[in-house]
Amino acid sequence: MLTTDLDRMSEKISKFSEFGALEGGGIQRLSLSEAAIAARTEFKRRVTELGMTFETDDVANMYATFPGTEPGLPRIVVGSHMDSVRSGGNYDGIYGVLSGLEVAETIIKSGIKLRHPITVMVWTNEEGARFEPAMMCSGIVLNKFSKEKMLGVVETGGTVTFGEALAASGFVGDEKNRLNPNDYCAYFEPHIEQGPVLEDEGLDIGIVDGVVGMVNYDIILEGMACHAGTFPQNKRKDALRAASQVILELWDKIGALAPDIVFTMGEISCHPNVHTIVPARIKFSLDSRHKDMDVIARVVDIIKNLPKEVCGCKLSYEEHWGRTTIRFNDKMLGFVENAVKGLGYKYNHMYSGAGHDAQYVSEMLPAVMLFIPSKDGLSHTVVEYSSPEQCWNGANVLLNALVEADGAL
Amino acid sequence: MLTTDLDRMSEKISKFSEFGALEGGGIQRLSLSEAAIAARTEFKRRVTELGMTFETDDVANMYATFPGTEPGLPRIVVGSHMDSVRSGGNYDGIYGVLSGLEVAETIIKSGIKLRHPITVMVWTNEEGARFEPAMMCSGIVLNKFSKEKMLGVVETGGTVTFGEALAASGFVGDEKNRLNPNDYCAYFEPHIEQGPVLEDEGLDIGIVDGVVGMVNYDIILEGMACHAGTFPQNKRKDALRAASQVILELWDKIGALAPDIVFTMGEISCHPNVHTIVPARIKFSLDSRHKDMDVIARVVDIIKNLPKEVCGCKLSYEEHWGRTTIRFNDKMLGFVENAVKGLGYKYNHMYSGAGHDAQYVSEMLPAVMLFIPSKDGLSHTVVEYSSPEQCWNGANVLLNALVEADGAL
Repeated sequence: MLTTDLDRMSEKISKFSEFGALEGGGIQRLSLSEAAIAARTEFKRRVTELGMTFETDDVANMYATFPGTEPGLPRIVVGSHMDSVRSGGNYDGIYGVLSGLEVAETIIKSGIKLRHPITVMVWTNEEGARFEPAMMCSGIVLNKFSKEKMLGVVETGGTVTFGEALAASGFVGDEKNRLNPNDYCAYFEPHIEQGPVLEDEGLDIGIVDGVVGMVNYDIILEGMACHAGTFPQNKRKDALRAASQVILELWDKIGALAPDIVFTMGEISCHPNVHTIVPARIKFSLDSRHKDMDVIARVVDIIKNLPKEVCGCKLSYEEHWGRTTIRFNDKMLGFVENAVKGLGYKYNHMYSGAGHDAQYVSEMLPAVMLFIPSKDGLSHTVVEYSSPEQCWNGANVLLNALVEADGAL
Repeated sequence: MLTTDLDRMSEKISKFSEFGALEGGGIQRLSLSEAAIAARTEFKRRVTELGMTFETDDVANMYATFPGTEPGLPRIVVGSHMDSVRSGGNYDGIYGVLSGLEVAETIIKSGIKLRHPITVMVWTNEEGARFEPAMMCSGIVLNKFSKEKMLGVVETGGTVTFGEALAASGFVGDEKNRLNPNDYCAYFEPHIEQGPVLEDEGLDIGIVDGVVGMVNYDIILEGMACHAGTFPQNKRKDALRAASQVILELWDKIGALAPDIVFTMGEISCHPNVHTIVPARIKFSLDSRHKDMDVIARVVDIIKNLPKEVCGCKLSYEEHWGRTTIRFNDKMLGFVENAVKGLGYKYNHMYSGAGHDAQYVSEMLPAVMLFIPSKDGLSHTVVEYSSPEQCWNGANVLLNALVEADGAL
């Protein structure tokens, strides 16, 4: 089996960790920020030095391409992103770009002949931390979002629009350069797991069968504000008491649906939120994800069958958004599995619980993802970590899968 | 039995409801605001017209005094406040001032001869809505707070200090005018109940035996932030789940201590409070009040005996502040009870669950409070309401209790 270069892979991780580096570790590299532009510039410098063609599309997605041996064949692409969340880590997103770059460098420098051109691409604004929503530019390319509307999005906590940041970036190219099903034939996206399963089970690689479906609701309890000292306890309609009961009921009922279901009540607000006033209104979010959409349908049933009144408080809910489970391409999954087995790595099959650009791309191209372990399962934090060997393993899998795809497609 | 004038009492309530009136009802009359100064000016005009002496002390507490028949006797005082919370009502605080004023007007205009001088006083900044803390100026007079420190308090949401607002008010007088145990011999404070008990039980008057003791804690649950999609449910340390369990446990355990205990978890914060991240930290407040300090001690025991770990989250608590139950003066309570009985009003004895200036004053002078009903038990809201008859009843009780006190003291 082919392998990439461990030291070269590590050097890439180290170098790109400088762009937006935070005191004490981690990075903050919001989309199209100064730090993000510096990382883009370094990417461009490196791919150009490798003899790759550098192109950008109209929303500054970047494409670095090395030609194949058979003219006219479509490109095989490895894609990911370089932007981070606020106080993010050195692996989420950037690992996919740098493992792609290492694979390209290995192919080019080792003189491995591929029939298809190989492209390493970088999506603009995957995290949505500066400009909402997440996965904005794969969403634009896949017609999930209107480009015009996205250009008007104002940065969180500031005044600059996405369109203005884009125009100032120096990386806007031609719309015809966008990822498309004529010029491309396969999409790989390596990523860190962002969960603890691989580490806990002592595995090297997660073969990502798909991205789980999900639902998002707000649940609202409306009681009555009254004075903490003067209003008898048994006459109160305390929205926090009611919410606590509902939260525990949801833990019981949703938790019983499937062993691998996840559900999160991550956001809560209280009105008026004064220590001497009984809470009149509590709103909390509920996010639930599972690969089997029938299970998700049962989550929705549980929400819809919650009692209309709890501890004297009126219960209501608002549906926000959801997504359907997507399954990656079987042929692509096969290439990854063959590579993993050939390299003798320990692996499992898993679904991604987080969203990734690959899920949109999978509607256009045969796509697949692979995961490497995340220390303690942590990501979107400055302590995010995958070891040099783990990063290298992923690049090796990518290399061999890509070479097999090149022969088979 | 003597009575005050129903129409005159109602006119006072109507007139003072104009100062800081809000569109649609209620008032916002923050301490030393333009609206509050207008109300003070009207108070000064009215008492001067009645032939009362108008004085203020060094923190703009106002004292309007009508002489008694026996020179050298100390004053009997009726005190309350004119400032409101944000979006407050037309009764909290101001009712005490205006019932005192109506009683003085009745005495003066009917030619009732009292041995003692009678003073109607207005405390500055009882609510603490603009300048924290509440009961600031009775606290200064009773040495609960350092005056110097209070002068430096900056208004909530603004830049003006209490000292600056005071200096600009035009109502600063001499420190020697402060309420004191040599020049005064008794303190009455009529107030709205701010709870539903009198209304529910069809009563006219609450004789306030004292002000309940209380404790204030924050309870903190520390879990672990992780990704809502990628982190298995059974490995999570979800601080909101843990907090929900603790909140319900506190409802069970504290609720079982005494039928008339009150406890409130009114404020809750969640970190990071993002719908796709498992809550790492929840902090919520706990306020509990009861007249029996042994019961309050058992509340503290319950808090101290909470498990140190809940659903994998570390539990801790912070004690903030508390106060001991105070009981009003028995002789003063007798004057009020005799008046209520003589007038044939239905009444009960109760403790105040809310704090009032009277609780500080009771350390210096024989003091007592009386309550009139609050519609639906609501206060600190624009819909706060007590009927003209209810307001009048309270003034009648005050008048007769004050006359009896004048004879007995």
